[in-house]
Amino acid sequence: MLKVVKFGGSSLANAEQFQKVVDIIRSDKDRRFVIPSAPGKRFDGDTKVTDMLYSCYRQAEQGKDFGRSFRNIMERYQDIISGLGLDLSLDDEFAVIEKNFLEKTGEDYAASRGEYLNGRIMAACLGFAFVDPVEMICFDEEGNFDDRRTDKAMRKRLAGEKNAVIPGFYGAMPDGSVKTFSRGGSDITGSLVAKAIHADLYENWTDVSGFLMADPHVIKDPVVISTITYREMRELSYMGASVLHEDAVFPLIKEGIPINVRNTNRPEDPGTMVVESTCNKPQYTITGIGGKKGFASITIEKAMMNAEIGFGRKVLQVFEEAGMTFEHTPSGIDTFSVFVNQHEFEPLEQTVIAGLHRAVRPDLIELESDLALVAVVGRGMKRTRGTAGRIFSALAHAHVNVKMIDQGSSELNIIVGVENRDFEAAIRAIYDIFVTASL
Amino acid sequence: MLKVVKFGGSSLANAEQFQKVVDIIRSDKDRRFVIPSAPGKRFDGDTKVTDMLYSCYRQAEQGKDFGRSFRNIMERYQDIISGLGLDLSLDDEFAVIEKNFLEKTGEDYAASRGEYLNGRIMAACLGFAFVDPVEMICFDEEGNFDDRRTDKAMRKRLAGEKNAVIPGFYGAMPDGSVKTFSRGGSDITGSLVAKAIHADLYENWTDVSGFLMADPHVIKDPVVISTITYREMRELSYMGASVLHEDAVFPLIKEGIPINVRNTNRPEDPGTMVVESTCNKPQYTITGIGGKKGFASITIEKAMMNAEIGFGRKVLQVFEEAGMTFEHTPSGIDTFSVFVNQHEFEPLEQTVIAGLHRAVRPDLIELESDLALVAVVGRGMKRTRGTAGRIFSALAHAHVNVKMIDQGSSELNIIVGVENRDFEAAIRAIYDIFVTASL
Repeated sequence: MLKVVKFGGSSLANAEQFQKVVDIIRSDKDRRFVIPSAPGKRFDGDTKVTDMLYSCYRQAEQGKDFGRSFRNIMERYQDIISGLGLDLSLDDEFAVIEKNFLEKTGEDYAASRGEYLNGRIMAACLGFAFVDPVEMICFDEEGNFDDRRTDKAMRKRLAGEKNAVIPGFYGAMPDGSVKTFSRGGSDITGSLVAKAIHADLYENWTDVSGFLMADPHVIKDPVVISTITYREMRELSYMGASVLHEDAVFPLIKEGIPINVRNTNRPEDPGTMVVESTCNKPQYTITGIGGKKGFASITIEKAMMNAEIGFGRKVLQVFEEAGMTFEHTPSGIDTFSVFVNQHEFEPLEQTVIAGLHRAVRPDLIELESDLALVAVVGRGMKRTRGTAGRIFSALAHAHVNVKMIDQGSSELNIIVGVENRDFEAAIRAIYDIFVTASL
Repeated sequence: MLKVVKFGGSSLANAEQFQKVVDIIRSDKDRRFVIPSAPGKRFDGDTKVTDMLYSCYRQAEQGKDFGRSFRNIMERYQDIISGLGLDLSLDDEFAVIEKNFLEKTGEDYAASRGEYLNGRIMAACLGFAFVDPVEMICFDEEGNFDDRRTDKAMRKRLAGEKNAVIPGFYGAMPDGSVKTFSRGGSDITGSLVAKAIHADLYENWTDVSGFLMADPHVIKDPVVISTITYREMRELSYMGASVLHEDAVFPLIKEGIPINVRNTNRPEDPGTMVVESTCNKPQYTITGIGGKKGFASITIEKAMMNAEIGFGRKVLQVFEEAGMTFEHTPSGIDTFSVFVNQHEFEPLEQTVIAGLHRAVRPDLIELESDLALVAVVGRGMKRTRGTAGRIFSALAHAHVNVKMIDQGSSELNIIVGVENRDFEAAIRAIYDIFVTASL
């Protein structure tokens, strides 16, 4: 087995967390390639090292004295080194960084030092090789990531290494200068490494024990999802926060490399496996419940619209010309509704209404706002009869008024539209009927 | 009260039926304006007089001897006159018609004689004035119906009449020649009369006691709908046969004139009232169940499609360019499905698939055929919680696999996609839970 393991910022925020990470890596000799993030927040209200670096560099760029800010950053790392009892000095490293700040080497360089220094500490601690991603991760002249050159360089560079620490988040331009990925980009680095060396598993260690079946702000202590397919994850993450960086997951899944989301603070928890597909039967009929507030619906009524070739296209074209995407388009016989993001729609409302009148001469246009969408997702729904019945009975019992239902032919999800104020009640009712009731 | 009453072909097929109609009209002095159709089938396998006229005229047009066909038509009317014991001779009328057939006056003229002659008999029988629609119903030079001129002419012509019989189905071109509406056009005549004279009620007498809650081929003796709104009727009729001519109903409803569908053979039955809107609470939560087999679904999968402005428009444009309409477009997160008429889709299948590949570069296109759509319709669904729950629980219990769900924001209907083979079981399950269970 060959595992690539990536640790998030909270897993490396201080010496205590760092020690947990070291123990985790040492406990499994398959964990051979390590991708560290920069140190994250140690407590609520703390500042991430990456943000400290951005702000310190801004001072340097403006010609201000950044000494104090710089010392604070140095202290963060020194605390980790001392806490771990390591015999390591980063003085030379910091001298180089300070010099480069003074020479205004760039914001990307500055931000990347958080991961770089953490990588140095990690490599020393584990006795692993340190491989700087500037040697392998290539961007082109325009700053676009170069997939093919990167893959080739990585294979070559890592071929001889038994173990290595590779800082996440950045690579190099053709002139050798540092270029970063977008925020959360350490997962991109990890996924590139896993792909290049044909890893068997990619572990993503964070501060949660995997994906939860529902939002913990709505459901107290929701059950952790043990196995989720990539498609299910997409359908759920789309409507809420995601643990994984989308651009990182897709290439891995396409290569057939499963992702294991684990909790650094509870290494005994198995976490969530993200896979392309699986025969693994889900424990509950549904895999999870996602959702989001703040949608609006535009319902267009027109007698005989179904016989009008091009009707739907003309309606959607109006939204497109206004620069809007849409979520769902449920339709009746003489009605066609478009569900959109309310925030995005509000400034364009009158433009869209006027456009619809011009485009399709509707009998009536009705707007409804403050709607929420709840997505009930699960590969198990296809094989279980009565899922829809249970969902809607539960919602009725909870006095939730169902405004919209959309189930595509994928049979992987049912999407329900409710009023914003019914959002939490809807999620609770669905969670209770499928999970609480069978615990 | 001022009522316009229209009788369908089966209500006037022979003397016995004719007598029922006369009794119905005489029993209510408000029934002042009567629109007769041509005599319909007297028994299974019989020929409608309109079809006899078309076929007879075709012989005349081809210069063949149409004597025997013509005598058969004369006999149909003579049987009615004799059966009613009327002192009426249509000899002069038939002489004129025969002459016009020989002079090839036109197919529309020929077809219209069915209603014309029935109108003559009806007027004589009731002692009502006979008003020929050629005096009032106007088409323009291109053969398009002229709404405004007709309305004006009707008001003027009928102003002085206490009662009148006005044959359905035809009017006149500017040169005075006869022009017919499409088949079933007697309802158009009736609706024009009702509108022009501001009738309080339009009665449509046929051989059914109103709209049924479900297809009698699927449900034995389904309950008759007592009151249905125009919108509900549209949603139901769209998916199955309709008693009323669509072009006739819309103008009436817009004028606020309710339509009462009645049964000539059971005049004691109250029939179905079709209204624009009503406070009348439906007896059951649902008003009716419609449905149709023979749909196909095209499901397009593409990662991140929701973020792609114009995605839906491009998909629908492919169908539009192939000259196709669509029924529904349920969508998930990375999937967008289009439900279409399978028969219409089959010859265009490969064109559409190629078009979709060009237009949106999908990850995957999946086709599914032999699907049926079931529409559960009812204004009562909005006020009753749990309707969706009951529907889907009933379907699960009946082992029906739900392929698609679409509920727009109108809350007037829920549309369910099932396999063709589950169509009847689905309708039965829904009917039973809402109707049989509460009988």
